[in-house]
Order: sequence, then structure tokens, then C-alpha cells
Amino acid sequence: MASAEDVKELRKRTGSGIMDIRQALDEAGGDPDQAVEILRVKGQAQAAKRGGKTASEGVIASYVHAGGQIGVLVEVNSETDFVARSDEFQEFAREVALHVAASAPLYISEDDIPEEDREREMRILREQAAGEGKPEDVQQRIAEGCMKKWLEDVVLLNQKHVNEEKHETKTIEELRAALSATTGENIVVRRAVRFQVGEED
Amino acid sequence: MASAEDVKELRKRTGSGIMDIRQALDEAGGDPDQAVEILRVKGQAQAAKRGGKTASEGVIASYVHAGGQIGVLVEVNSETDFVARSDEFQEFAREVALHVAASAPLYISEDDIPEEDREREMRILREQAAGEGKPEDVQQRIAEGCMKKWLEDVVLLNQKHVNEEKHETKTIEELRAALSATTGENIVVRRAVRFQVGEED
Repeated sequence: MASAEDVKELRKRTGSGIMDIRQALDEAGGDPDQAVEILRVKGQAQAAKRGGKTASEGVIASYVHAGGQIGVLVEVNSETDFVARSDEFQEFAREVALHVAASAPLYISEDDIPEEDREREMRILREQAAGEGKPEDVQQRIAEGCMKKWLEDVVLLNQKHVNEEKHETKTIEELRAALSATTGENIVVRRAVRFQVGEED
Repeated sequence: MASAEDVKELRKRTGSGIMDIRQALDEAGGDPDQAVEILRVKGQAQAAKRGGKTASEGVIASYVHAGGQIGVLVEVNSETDFVARSDEFQEFAREVALHVAASAPLYISEDDIPEEDREREMRILREQAAGEGKPEDVQQRIAEGCMKKWLEDVVLLNQKHVNEEKHETKTIEELRAALSATTGENIVVRRAVRFQVGEED
């Protein structure tokens, strides 16, 4: 029996009717991907198209560095269209895009760091500290201090905005929290991508 | 013994000295990732930073749809900076960005389609054709015709530019080839990303 969750998900993915989806899921033994194929074979689903589903409000902002050698695209979400269209929200999105162009963060938030990346970094920092001939507890403190520094370096929300004069050395997270307080809405820096001409993938 | 290829690759990734790299590769039994760790532990490598390496010339262009609900970033490469800075090249990059915003292609070129995606599509089209009660050779022709149509729909270079009036229903590939002929350089649409507010990942 198809779960309500699966049906809802497939309805979003295919635009098909609920009875068709239930039947396809049954035929597919509950496998959603196979159910999509069945729906498409029967002509009951649209070809999967990218995008379109709106989960929340917000804005896409871009920043291309003079000369077009670096470009950034960011999405910032709010809860309502009203806030998304406000000047202060749009300004925040632009400032984040500009910051990403200058600072090239690797992750949006600490939660986005794959466990593997974090462990590799900690292992390297521990071994670096071990090479300095200090007692073990000191080594541990050194490694932890370096880890904190690394998180400030590579995580967007932990970074101080590059325009330190304008933003009084506030971090992106502090600017986000301030905007959230002013607007009374949850504000989310959802994703960012940065292209630099000729860089390796 | 470390291969010249590996040494060159690690030199790009770490900025370390060649002798240090050779030694690290030996210690790592030839594993490049482990060699990077060894170099970093020894302080002989910079922390891995995103980007920076310039493989070719070109430009990053962005296009954000009025209202900021859709945004696109594209990289187009040329062989020389001279061509990259020319008006016609910059215009081409802008036109590609605008087109991607409107058409949401899934792939840049046919070569970028994972074999798995292509096989899944062909399987679906064959089964759709089989449902129509036609002879088998006709079924095959129908499926092939639909495949061709699919490739025109989802592959950027195969798509007709959305501004059909201005570009006389030319495909992006035709526009690219024309620019390549005018400039006498290889022109490559290297990558594109499209964000739409609230869409699912």
C-alpha cells in the first residue's frame, strides 16, 4: 500500500492524478523512481522538468565582478513575498552575493560540512599540532583552536562580511539574524554558487 | 616512483615544491589524496582553496529575471583574453544566460548526459511506442524520433534560442559556431547554473 508521503512526493514530481500514482506505486512495489517511469510510459506524467516547485518566498541575487572573471548566484528565502520584495531583504541578498565573490566560502553553514571533510581536517590539524613537541593536552587545545579558525575561514555564515567598515565586522550570520529580527521572519541563506573563469571543477 | 603527471597535479593542488611532492607521494604509496594530507601536516602545502587555477580565458555572465525569482550564471570560454573582452563575445554570454533562464536545460551538450539518464529515457520511449500497437520497426522509428525531440528539449546546445526573432530560430550551438568562425577561436559554453526561488534541489 502506497504511503501518503510517497503519493504526495510523486504528485509533486509528475503532476499525475492520485489514483494513477497509487496504482503505479503498487505496480512498482513501492519504488518511487520506477513508479515515475510507469506513469510516464502510460502517458500519465509530464516529462520530469527541472525546477518550478515553490517551497518558499525569496530572491535570487547575482554579483559579477568587474571584468566578468568572477560571478556569484545566491538564493535567500523569507516566509512571505512581502518581506522578499522589501529593500532591506534585497540589499541583504546582494551583500551576500558580493561577499561570496570575494571570500569563496566552501559551505553555507557548519551543518553543510560533510562528516568526512570535517574528520579529515581535524586529523590534519591534530597531526600538525603533534609535530610541535608540546604536551598532549596542549596539542588538543591547539588543534581545537585551529579547527575553530578553519570553520571561520570556510563557512559562509561564520565569515565576517568583507565590507568590514560598512558592516562593523559583523558575520553573515549576525547580519542574517538582525534582518530576521527586523522583519520578524525566518531568513535563510539557502544556496550559493561561485564561478571563476578557468578554475578547475 | 611518482609519475610526472601526479607531481604536476599535486603541484597545482598544493603549491608545494616538487621534491616535497615526490617524497610525499612515495610516503603515501602513490595515493594523491593522502600525499596532500602529508604535505599539509608538514606545513608544505597551503590549505586547499577553491578556484584560482586559470585554464582558459572567458567571462562569467549572469541574468536575473525581473523580480529576482529566477537567476542564471554561465561561464563561456575563449582562447584569448582579447576575444573574451570583445563586445560580441560578452553579448553571446549574456544571450546564453538569458536563454537558460527561460529554457531551463538539463545538460549543456549531449556528451554531458549520463549514460543512465539516456538509457532510462530510451526505455520509457520504447515502452510508450510499444503501447500503440504498431509494427516493431515503426515502434523503433517512433522511439528514435521521440529521443531526438527529447535531446532538443533538454540539451542547451540543441535548443533554439528563445529569442527566435532576433536569432532567426538558430540553436545555441549554431550561434556558438558562428561566433567561433567570426573570432577564429574555439568558443566553449563550459557550465551553467539556474536557480529558481523555492524549487526543490
